[in-house]
Amino acid sequence: MSDQLRRIVLASRPQGTPSTDNFRLESGPLPRPQDGQFLARVIWLSLDPYMRGRMDDSKSYAKPVAIGDTMEAACVAEVIDSRNGDFARGDIVMGGFGWSSHALSDGTGVRKIDPAIAPISTALGVLGMPGHTAWVGLNDIAQAQSGETIVVSAATGAVGSLVGQLAKQKGMHVIGVAGGAEKCAFAEKDLQYDLCLDHHALDAEALQKAIAEAAPAGVDVYYENVGGKTLEAVIPAMNVGGRIALCGMIAWYSGKGLADAMPLPRVWRTILTQRLRVQGFIIFDHFDRLPAFLQDVGPMVRDGRVTYRESVAEGLDAAPQAFLDLLEGGNFGKQLVRVGDDPAG
Amino acid sequence: MSDQLRRIVLASRPQGTPSTDNFRLESGPLPRPQDGQFLARVIWLSLDPYMRGRMDDSKSYAKPVAIGDTMEAACVAEVIDSRNGDFARGDIVMGGFGWSSHALSDGTGVRKIDPAIAPISTALGVLGMPGHTAWVGLNDIAQAQSGETIVVSAATGAVGSLVGQLAKQKGMHVIGVAGGAEKCAFAEKDLQYDLCLDHHALDAEALQKAIAEAAPAGVDVYYENVGGKTLEAVIPAMNVGGRIALCGMIAWYSGKGLADAMPLPRVWRTILTQRLRVQGFIIFDHFDRLPAFLQDVGPMVRDGRVTYRESVAEGLDAAPQAFLDLLEGGNFGKQLVRVGDDPAG
Repeated sequence: MSDQLRRIVLASRPQGTPSTDNFRLESGPLPRPQDGQFLARVIWLSLDPYMRGRMDDSKSYAKPVAIGDTMEAACVAEVIDSRNGDFARGDIVMGGFGWSSHALSDGTGVRKIDPAIAPISTALGVLGMPGHTAWVGLNDIAQAQSGETIVVSAATGAVGSLVGQLAKQKGMHVIGVAGGAEKCAFAEKDLQYDLCLDHHALDAEALQKAIAEAAPAGVDVYYENVGGKTLEAVIPAMNVGGRIALCGMIAWYSGKGLADAMPLPRVWRTILTQRLRVQGFIIFDHFDRLPAFLQDVGPMVRDGRVTYRESVAEGLDAAPQAFLDLLEGGNFGKQLVRVGDDPAG
Repeated sequence: MSDQLRRIVLASRPQGTPSTDNFRLESGPLPRPQDGQFLARVIWLSLDPYMRGRMDDSKSYAKPVAIGDTMEAACVAEVIDSRNGDFARGDIVMGGFGWSSHALSDGTGVRKIDPAIAPISTALGVLGMPGHTAWVGLNDIAQAQSGETIVVSAATGAVGSLVGQLAKQKGMHVIGVAGGAEKCAFAEKDLQYDLCLDHHALDAEALQKAIAEAAPAGVDVYYENVGGKTLEAVIPAMNVGGRIALCGMIAWYSGKGLADAMPLPRVWRTILTQRLRVQGFIIFDHFDRLPAFLQDVGPMVRDGRVTYRESVAEGLDAAPQAFLDLLEGGNFGKQLVRVGDDPAG
């Protein structure tokens, strides 16, 4: 056990694309829990695209991370010292402990993880916030139906990889868009996609043509994670009454591609003439659906109807570069950082 | 009674803004009804922004009008000769008779109008498709609630003027946007708007500021008829969970203002971070709601809780110019053409 608290703080706000210079590693003595608190050592740290928004000082879901504060993240951790009656040494817990080797907590927003159900890292992925996001977006927001055609962008990402599998289980025609031949092969072979298009190999025009060909009856649901040219390629294929579940727009997070983005009037016109419903959502509004999600998807993970893939960076120091890679699509599956030893792994 | 059939046909497709050259008046002998048909003389002809879309050869709600075909329109007419048992001479009917002095019909899509309920021209306005559109957009699409704040663009138009009044009846805070001081005064004095902003007197920045000030608690519902700078001014004021009922985008119908339109990513980002629901709709999908609309709004018109205003062009020949004026906001209230004598007026 390390006797130092190590954490990564936001050193400066990025102008456009962030770099490792925007982060700084700090260390100090390990804190001791006060009455009602526990101390946990972080095992798994989750990296997610939404963190890019936290680095900016503009209006978003939540307050930005302040300069000098620890970067936010959901983590799986082990309680190593406790003065809180609800948490005992050895408990495996999930909470917002940040980009950090250890954290003090009073238990607010922390839930215990049962290592018997699945590997504990899945609490950050397929059975965690990304999985919950996939499930809510597909069912509650898009109200996807059997027999419909869906396009999923970032098809092999933490969210998209579950959207595709759940859509197929539901009896939909499932088209993915991902970056690179390897990801596309994985999507078709392991994630049950009927077809996955490689946006690295296709320019905007070719991608639009490929989607039109892949969805001869049109697209009923677009599960939107990226914005950019994928959005622009899907818009013309949307059917009357189609739904766009707007979950993310990673292609535009750092201000890239804004100048040559599709003009708003073209999209507005399609929403009007095709009577589309475009709905933004964020999982923090849907915690009431967590039990229903776990009840539905937990058994699918256990019995293998649904699979998942993780991309693991080793050690807290690797978090900033892994995060930058994630923003560029360099991850393959749910991006995690292994901060400490996993007792089960 | 004229013994000539006069009609206005689409002579050519407009490049951008249409002109009177795109239309041509044709005349010929009056047809005689065959078995199962009736002949009607048109009294009132409705001009509506959606007709602009019919002039283009691109994907929209419905097929374009073919070159040489009569321009489409809903009309109120009087049956003057009938070989159809359901319709008798003297009946007042509403149907899609087009920009025409007379029409033959087999009764498909035609309904009888009771002149005792309200002036027969209201079947084209407050108690017709525009009113039905207003009611469905506010209630079914936007799901507007008492206590919420709504912005209505084209606030004094055929649709907007009813949206504002219904919203106020519902107990909402109602902000209109219209073009010109006279329209704004009418909106505030006669249409129950709490406030109406004149977009002719405000540039994009000033309009955005004025909306922010008029809606200190933010905007929950935007009833969208126009696109353009009004949309761009409302977007930053939208509250979390807000709804945009996308009914029209008249500012962009003829391709004007496209180049300097707000970039798509800014709107996409707001939909995401504010968890907005943007829904396009067209009244043709909602005919099942016509009885409920008439039951709700009919009494409001009869007892004066809801008022309406008509802008009347005299004679079929005046239709093309009146339509062009409508696209530029030159009308004031529901735009009609008086094609023949109204027996009640």
